[in-house]
Amino acid sequence: MPRTAASPQRGQPTIVSIAERAGVSIASVSRVLNGLGARRDTVERVERAAAELGYVPNAVARSLKDGRTRQLTFAMPDIGNPVYVAMVRAIQSVAKAAGYRLLLHSTDAVVDDELAVLRSLGDRTSDGLIICPIRITDAHIEALRAAAGPVVVIGSLPDEVPVDSVRADSVAGASLAVHHLYETGRRRIAFVNGPADTVPGRNRHEGYRAALADCGLTYDPSLVVHTDFGIESGAEAAEALLHRSPDAVFCANDQLALGAARALHARALRIPEDVAVAGMDDSALAQAGWPPLTSVDLGSTERGRRAAELLLERLGAPDSPTPHTTTAPPRLVVRASTGRAAPDA
Amino acid sequence: MPRTAASPQRGQPTIVSIAERAGVSIASVSRVLNGLGARRDTVERVERAAAELGYVPNAVARSLKDGRTRQLTFAMPDIGNPVYVAMVRAIQSVAKAAGYRLLLHSTDAVVDDELAVLRSLGDRTSDGLIICPIRITDAHIEALRAAAGPVVVIGSLPDEVPVDSVRADSVAGASLAVHHLYETGRRRIAFVNGPADTVPGRNRHEGYRAALADCGLTYDPSLVVHTDFGIESGAEAAEALLHRSPDAVFCANDQLALGAARALHARALRIPEDVAVAGMDDSALAQAGWPPLTSVDLGSTERGRRAAELLLERLGAPDSPTPHTTTAPPRLVVRASTGRAAPDA
Repeated sequence: MPRTAASPQRGQPTIVSIAERAGVSIASVSRVLNGLGARRDTVERVERAAAELGYVPNAVARSLKDGRTRQLTFAMPDIGNPVYVAMVRAIQSVAKAAGYRLLLHSTDAVVDDELAVLRSLGDRTSDGLIICPIRITDAHIEALRAAAGPVVVIGSLPDEVPVDSVRADSVAGASLAVHHLYETGRRRIAFVNGPADTVPGRNRHEGYRAALADCGLTYDPSLVVHTDFGIESGAEAAEALLHRSPDAVFCANDQLALGAARALHARALRIPEDVAVAGMDDSALAQAGWPPLTSVDLGSTERGRRAAELLLERLGAPDSPTPHTTTAPPRLVVRASTGRAAPDA
Repeated sequence: MPRTAASPQRGQPTIVSIAERAGVSIASVSRVLNGLGARRDTVERVERAAAELGYVPNAVARSLKDGRTRQLTFAMPDIGNPVYVAMVRAIQSVAKAAGYRLLLHSTDAVVDDELAVLRSLGDRTSDGLIICPIRITDAHIEALRAAAGPVVVIGSLPDEVPVDSVRADSVAGASLAVHHLYETGRRRIAFVNGPADTVPGRNRHEGYRAALADCGLTYDPSLVVHTDFGIESGAEAAEALLHRSPDAVFCANDQLALGAARALHARALRIPEDVAVAGMDDSALAQAGWPPLTSVDLGSTERGRRAAELLLERLGAPDSPTPHTTTAPPRLVVRASTGRAAPDA
């Protein structure tokens, strides 16, 4: 009988009850239901008995049979950050077109949760995983090597790890922003960064520092704040930097930049006339505030799309030996928040 | 042998090969693997043979056995709208605490996708579903009645539909905002709404119109724009309304309000001195722009949490007859975007 919301499992027939009703051996039922072939009349009797008992071939049974769940998993650090929303959209559209559903995890960048998701590939509740860790520990690398199914990492893995990956070039991206601020006359360029112990935090700091050197500006640690990647943190950091009178605040993502802009507005400072503001990711938030934010597009949509394609390729050719690595090039998007040079420039 | 990333299915043993190795009947293997009980030595032989053949009891097999996937599904119209991100966070924390993973769908409010998710409960890839449709058609109601597993709707169902649901009171919520704008001296209160054919769109328009009447203000259709629920749409709608010289723009969500604020800034209009702006949802975006937005909290976190609890209760007691309906009360959060009265008030 059909399952109902009141009792999903009511009357679920077993291989044994189907065999009894069909008057064939349990082995025959097993072979027929697993598509292993049997005599024509046996197949017919089993299928008739299964139908009479309301046996519904379901995704779980199909999965046990062919080992496919038609589900992919994407594990991201923070579903509230629009850069990951852009990745979800891109991954979902590729997955959907290929007939896969997307199982999503927001890990809050908790290492144990990320490792648990990696291990869960062994459960076969998902055919493959795209994971975007902002910290990559030895435990991550060990879990990636031991993964029971295909994995694509959005992030910067050590080259020796044999896993497909898609990277942003946030060193070059941060450099683009700093060069732009310099070229529009800024000389005291503060930097509001994410956590220093994350890959994005490290890379963006490296790009900031290298670009200052290129521009002949001295690196001043008192103009740099490390915090987390959120709007409130950006506001607090900018507030703390104001006594250093920066003429620009470069932020490691758009959320930080929106928060920084809010702190400047609260002090009645004009953006960009008094202080320019630039973010990174060119997410939906870059055009949410006022003035619209100059931001560095790190290719989040492109990275999501490419990661999904790599995962599908890996599912299609699991034995393909060499891991693929793609890097999305950064792109500076200039908007009003840095539009004009500071008056003193 | 253990599965590898290179070939997940290599050497996957069958019920038949386990029976052969154990020297017992296939029926016995079926009973043991399905936990239906058998003689002690039979259980031992089957388990030893299964282990020797590298049979790994996995989530899919467990699911086939006990009908549980330990996965829940949340289907939302738009993962890019922070109100749904708040719901995801709340649902995920309840689900995670109960040992469930969350399967997420962003349906873009496409009815066919929502119906497909409802039907997919029959696949048993998920134990239960929370769905948040912004349009509720006869097809939705039919699919809800026919659902093959427990469903909780975040939204306003007709009372006769026997499905657990959690509602916002956006009629009362919209009324709160309009009364607040009236009390702060606004008399030409424009309304930027979502699509008129959605439940939220209809309810928010009803609340707006009723509150104007309460305040003795005439409903002026030329002060009302229906668009979709996005930042750009809000900017375009506010731009189109400016020639009607409103002294307040009330928006049906925070994304629309951020867009409206951007359009006012672009025209060098002061918020709130020249035009007040209010949004709905009190999402993370309410404090992303400048000035911070007055917004109506419609309890998105509370609705997500309650929906997850209802689903878990339903999973625990599938035969509980009466559907539960909870309504989250709205709450006005006043910030600077409506802070002071218009000069002419």
